[in-house]
Amino acid sequence: MIQTQNFKDIVDQYKVIFFDSFGVIKNYQGLVPGMNKTFEYLEEQNKKYYIVTNDASRSPIQLADGFHKIGLPTIKYSNIISSGMLAKEYLDLKVHDGIVAYLGTPNSAHYIETSGLHTLPVSDINDSNINQVNALVLLDDEGFNWYSDLNKVVNLLRRRNIPTIVANTDLAYPLSSTDVAIAIGGIANMIETILGREFIRFGKPDSQTFMFAYDLVREKMSINKKDILMVGDTLHTDILGGNKFGLDTVLVFTGNTLPKDAETRIASTGIVPTYICDDAVVDIYPEYFHFQSK
Amino acid sequence: MIQTQNFKDIVDQYKVIFFDSFGVIKNYQGLVPGMNKTFEYLEEQNKKYYIVTNDASRSPIQLADGFHKIGLPTIKYSNIISSGMLAKEYLDLKVHDGIVAYLGTPNSAHYIETSGLHTLPVSDINDSNINQVNALVLLDDEGFNWYSDLNKVVNLLRRRNIPTIVANTDLAYPLSSTDVAIAIGGIANMIETILGREFIRFGKPDSQTFMFAYDLVREKMSINKKDILMVGDTLHTDILGGNKFGLDTVLVFTGNTLPKDAETRIASTGIVPTYICDDAVVDIYPEYFHFQSK
Amino acid sequence: MIQTQNFKDIVDQYKVIFFDSFGVIKNYQGLVPGMNKTFEYLEEQNKKYYIVTNDASRSPIQLADGFHKIGLPTIKYSNIISSGMLAKEYLDLKVHDGIVAYLGTPNSAHYIETSGLHTLPVSDINDSNINQVNALVLLDDEGFNWYSDLNKVVNLLRRRNIPTIVANTDLAYPLSSTDVAIAIGGIANMIETILGREFIRFGKPDSQTFMFAYDLVREKMSINKKDILMVGDTLHTDILGGNKFGLDTVLVFTGNTLPKDAETRIASTGIVPTYICDDAVVDIYPEYFHFQSK
Amino acid sequence: MIQTQNFKDIVDQYKVIFFDSFGVIKNYQGLVPGMNKTFEYLEEQNKKYYIVTNDASRSPIQLADGFHKIGLPTIKYSNIISSGMLAKEYLDLKVHDGIVAYLGTPNSAHYIETSGLHTLPVSDINDSNINQVNALVLLDDEGFNWYSDLNKVVNLLRRRNIPTIVANTDLAYPLSSTDVAIAIGGIANMIETILGREFIRFGKPDSQTFMFAYDLVREKMSINKKDILMVGDTLHTDILGGNKFGLDTVLVFTGNTLPKDAETRIASTGIVPTYICDDAVVDIYPEYFHFQSK
Repeated sequence: MIQTQNFKDIVDQYKVIFFDSFGVIKNYQGLVPGMNKTFEYLEEQNKKYYIVTNDASRSPIQLADGFHKIGLPTIKYSNIISSGMLAKEYLDLKVHDGIVAYLGTPNSAHYIETSGLHTLPVSDINDSNINQVNALVLLDDEGFNWYSDLNKVVNLLRRRNIPTIVANTDLAYPLSSTDVAIAIGGIANMIETILGREFIRFGKPDSQTFMFAYDLVREKMSINKKDILMVGDTLHTDILGGNKFGLDTVLVFTGNTLPKDAETRIASTGIVPTYICDDAVVDIYPEYFHFQSK
Repeated sequence: MIQTQNFKDIVDQYKVIFFDSFGVIKNYQGLVPGMNKTFEYLEEQNKKYYIVTNDASRSPIQLADGFHKIGLPTIKYSNIISSGMLAKEYLDLKVHDGIVAYLGTPNSAHYIETSGLHTLPVSDINDSNINQVNALVLLDDEGFNWYSDLNKVVNLLRRRNIPTIVANTDLAYPLSSTDVAIAIGGIANMIETILGREFIRFGKPDSQTFMFAYDLVREKMSINKKDILMVGDTLHTDILGGNKFGLDTVLVFTGNTLPKDAETRIASTGIVPTYICDDAVVDIYPEYFHFQSK
Repeated sequence: MIQTQNFKDIVDQYKVIFFDSFGVIKNYQGLVPGMNKTFEYLEEQNKKYYIVTNDASRSPIQLADGFHKIGLPTIKYSNIISSGMLAKEYLDLKVHDGIVAYLGTPNSAHYIETSGLHTLPVSDINDSNINQVNALVLLDDEGFNWYSDLNKVVNLLRRRNIPTIVANTDLAYPLSSTDVAIAIGGIANMIETILGREFIRFGKPDSQTFMFAYDLVREKMSINKKDILMVGDTLHTDILGGNKFGLDTVLVFTGNTLPKDAETRIASTGIVPTYICDDAVVDIYPEYFHFQSK
Repeated sequence: MIQTQNFKDIVDQYKVIFFDSFGVIKNYQGLVPGMNKTFEYLEEQNKKYYIVTNDASRSPIQLADGFHKIGLPTIKYSNIISSGMLAKEYLDLKVHDGIVAYLGTPNSAHYIETSGLHTLPVSDINDSNINQVNALVLLDDEGFNWYSDLNKVVNLLRRRNIPTIVANTDLAYPLSSTDVAIAIGGIANMIETILGREFIRFGKPDSQTFMFAYDLVREKMSINKKDILMVGDTLHTDILGGNKFGLDTVLVFTGNTLPKDAETRIASTGIVPTYICDDAVVDIYPEYFHFQSK
């Protein structure tokens, strides 16, 4: 079994911390126990932090609300970088008029709205408006009829050569300790294969996500990549992406990677985190806590 | 533009003809015009022929009925080899008891039934029967709820390490002159990618399909592969598979491959048919016909 | 740890045995200890057997010689099915004249020679003969200059749209207990990706290899697939291919799959052998042997 | 045929221009005719420009020298962003000591040298130093023995779980009007497939390359992505990467994409440039020039 390190000892060496959300801060049961102490410590120490997430199903404001509800009142929407924000930036820069069709809930579509563009669920596309559709965004696996709307997407893209943006590159996400759900990134793969095309994908491990966060940090302080730590539970997204961007990385065992599999997976993928910790909990009174818990 | 050859001149050189169905004999509008003359000629000349199809949504008897209805009364069910028949052979040989779960219509499930096995739609799997599920067969893109049943399949395969058979390897199939539908082979790709597994796939271009037909021919006559001609409209399935199995092949322009694209596609894929014809129509009075048609 | 079964108990239930060669009968050190007893037993019991191998670097006669030298005098060349034999059958059936260019040793090229065709190493192709080149066969990773000849192959296939046959689908093969060598199948992958083409591949897990062996058996006896057992050390080739062809399969631990990894690999790939044995040794006096070995 | 636009009219709308090198500024015959006038115009207009190239075989200083020799004296090394510079940044940030093994020429290795690290060709790795090897960089397809060193790389990575950096993601590069050469990116693909790993790749279309250039521009001026134009000849690298990063893009016909194929390729890939031009030549006296050329 791999020897893990104390998370606080690592955090103390860095000025800015990037956290993955699902599997690190929260999971399908709610707050990962003890993570409230981590964010209290970061506020107290005045360390900057960002939540860097592939969750494009809700806006940063809604994501922040979710953190408040599970007992993390200090996380502001401005601390959150989601792959959906990159989709919105793309639309701002590259699509100047017409309709942006989407797969996802109305909530997920709301926050990608941008001046001059009109968002429309794929189900509402018809012969009268198809020629105004200038982009397609795949946001979420919910909010549409898979059978009719996925077939509609394939035929839309055969008729209209428009940019297609995938705002969440994950293939699946956990629902419980045993079950997963197919994510929009998995669905996007299928449509790309059928059409023989490559969509525009935002989300970890892609560097553009890390760059978005890095740019926000640099607006507030002068910083070097060596001073930033990326904390995640998934080798292929958090750790690969953090490493490639030049950040030091921590793998934690509160999500996708189990302690018993870590060594094999690191060896077989060649994706090596800088550090490995049981969790991302900063426990400033660990002795006392252990005493209490008996 | 590619110079095409007369189909009758080619057919006359072979003892046995294998035909793809969709795009060669019929299309979304019904019979490909003139194909009735081809089958009349084959009967008259006493040439053996087989329809080799990736359509696993119906039994050979149902497929034969379909041909009768569009004006091809001589095609018997025993002339039809479908990838679904290979799925059934697999179950006969390799799965000895328990439940075979399936995605598809009840019709498609009916004909894979085999002694000792019970078929069950994926939607009916629950905690009380999941441990009896000993195989999963993906038959058709219709007959189930994509959202709930595809998610259920992913979790079934995470719990039960059972053989999964894909009875149709096509990614999509044509619905009209402009539109296509996602086929079960495309859906199977998505689930394989999410799970990191490789399913058991039956259907062209895989050799096992051609072998099944070849074995049926050899039961009736002594034959060499040089005496068999494969006729198809799709380079990646009919022509690649036929070539690899050692058969001479004809590409026709009544389906997936258009005359204007043929040269580019043959060059870019490296899949070269032995012959190219406009269609698979045997017109024994072509002069007269042309006279009439004026 | 997985519970293994006694190989003799399994063999006794089948009429015909297919063996993989490398990792089952021999390895980089020579004979797998005890395998001579297996072949003595098979001769004694008059059971039919075939060696089904992806080794296309030598002819069946040379492969048989190799078995004789390591102490298996009864294995005849007619017991050996190699993927190279399928390459030769393809050339016989589909390429009627001109030059067959090859990558491999002169030895490997010798046995694919067929009437009317002239074999030529890729290094000898030049402007004066390139238009006579009607097929390319990738046989072995040795016998040519990788830098100059692989670049030459890419440009040959850009100029000549000819069938390219890969006679060994393996990506790598073991050289010692720690090291591997890149196989011609791995090199073929690279060239396919660069060209955007799909070559014609022969070798396990492809069904055509098993069919070739099955046809040879059926020439000699009436047999059902249920009476054939496939024995191999590699899940992705021997076991996947055998299962798909409808055979019962045995995984042995004398080659690519180690006892400690078997359970994880079977679970992650979904490729499940019918049986698992330590090795393919038939030991008719196992008690006595164990007594001796103390 | 696609209607092209005048390059000067487009350039005049942007403050900063990013150019691909090969296929835009130069080709296998040297300078693309007229490109000297483009750089004269940019200097005259005081527009910022960068050459953004996947060529990691030489340092920016050597690349600048190459431009001077073909008649572009104003291009400074500080105007050049190569994927090799990202490899060097990665090593600076993430590899703190030991040996960096490499595939490539000594020239290509020279410029990735960084304090505290020692570079060593793969051919010089042996049992005495293999445990000091802390990273591997794939720089160029020349400067090593493909057969021995590629096999050595596979076994090095089986023993040492170290970051592997691919400094050029191209699969092949043009040598003449008809021939190409296999690039190190194509070789890297083969090794990844054999090992089942994913390497760290720098180069277009990856965003990190564009970000590196964007950061350099922002050090000198306040700029928005809307003010930057990316000019390239290849849809899959220059145009896809530029689009995804949020830049407007120009496809030119002086390299990989021919006018006759452009429409088909844009439709089949779904990669749509903002503009299409015959070349990237700014001709301020086009009338006069046309007069002369008659």
